[in-house]
Amino acid sequence: MSFSPLIENMVESLRCLPGVGRKTAQRMALHLLEREREAGMALAEALQAALEGVGHCRQCRNFSEQELCPICADAKRDGTTVCVVESPADVVAVEQSGSYRGLYFVLMGHLSPIDGIGPEDIGLDLLQERVRSGSIDELILATNPTVEGEATAFYLQDLVRDEDVRISRIAHGVPLGGELEYVDGSTLAHALSGRRAVDQG
Amino acid sequence: MSFSPLIENMVESLRCLPGVGRKTAQRMALHLLEREREAGMALAEALQAALEGVGHCRQCRNFSEQELCPICADAKRDGTTVCVVESPADVVAVEQSGSYRGLYFVLMGHLSPIDGIGPEDIGLDLLQERVRSGSIDELILATNPTVEGEATAFYLQDLVRDEDVRISRIAHGVPLGGELEYVDGSTLAHALSGRRAVDQG
Repeated sequence: MSFSPLIENMVESLRCLPGVGRKTAQRMALHLLEREREAGMALAEALQAALEGVGHCRQCRNFSEQELCPICADAKRDGTTVCVVESPADVVAVEQSGSYRGLYFVLMGHLSPIDGIGPEDIGLDLLQERVRSGSIDELILATNPTVEGEATAFYLQDLVRDEDVRISRIAHGVPLGGELEYVDGSTLAHALSGRRAVDQG
Repeated sequence: MSFSPLIENMVESLRCLPGVGRKTAQRMALHLLEREREAGMALAEALQAALEGVGHCRQCRNFSEQELCPICADAKRDGTTVCVVESPADVVAVEQSGSYRGLYFVLMGHLSPIDGIGPEDIGLDLLQERVRSGSIDELILATNPTVEGEATAFYLQDLVRDEDVRISRIAHGVPLGGELEYVDGSTLAHALSGRRAVDQG
């Protein structure tokens, strides 16, 4: 054993953080002990407060400490458009783009039968109910362009097929600033099949 | 604002960890909230326990939760040899080499007049006293081969010049498995000036 039990326990506990291995955890622990004891205590308190106090918004399933999250509660937002994303990080990404004023629905995952994750686990029953209530005009499917994300989008599309709601999928293609030469084949295929006519007026 | 206050506070608090910027902190916070709530609570408790319970060994200044650290308290170790290192991580590194059975003295830093860090701040008075008590035969200077580390080693050497103690400096040279071609000039100069006669028996 190289460290005293308390430090050893601290090092091992830090490994629950994503991307943190033994060496990094050790560096973090020694850094906190040597130079940042107060910040470390503040971190412990912030962790406890957040892990105890943060639940899910009852409408969009995003993380929220109130029953209704700030976005769902914001009367200035367009409640007729709902963007379906896989995770709270995706909400942040869309918000930061500054180009969306509607609401969200956060699946907190994607369909994955192999892991036993079915439609109810990602709240699709809740979303279907919300669509049926008739308050939504457009459902934007913004799941990730991965096998599971696409499958989830298809399933959802099928689920609300008979409802009176427009369904759209965000565009996939060459990213801005990207170079054709370095873009992978599937992305390029998507970009070609999703081409739009240019206004020649 | 992109997150609710509790999550925002958690993200900002995680940034006290070394090498963790805004994006990484965000990923860590969402990971804990989504998948590792229990581990996160355990981490908070481990942080609090360690930051409150870990002090310094009264003999070697290493981190310890007892008054005397396990290494200093170990009767099987050679108390006549003391290895002087800059940080607790260095103790771990030397211990992991498995080739040292003596005790340590941890400076918890190095001399740095520009930052107002003088000899007392790195416990050199304590070390001088320990040398004077006559229980130490050899002092191995294992501070880092940096400007500050070398200066600290020189200062310490000067401090105990008149005491009855052997002083040595760990060897600096080409690392094992290293290739001459890729070793920097200063290291190579050290390796050359520190060359040893080969036994031609």
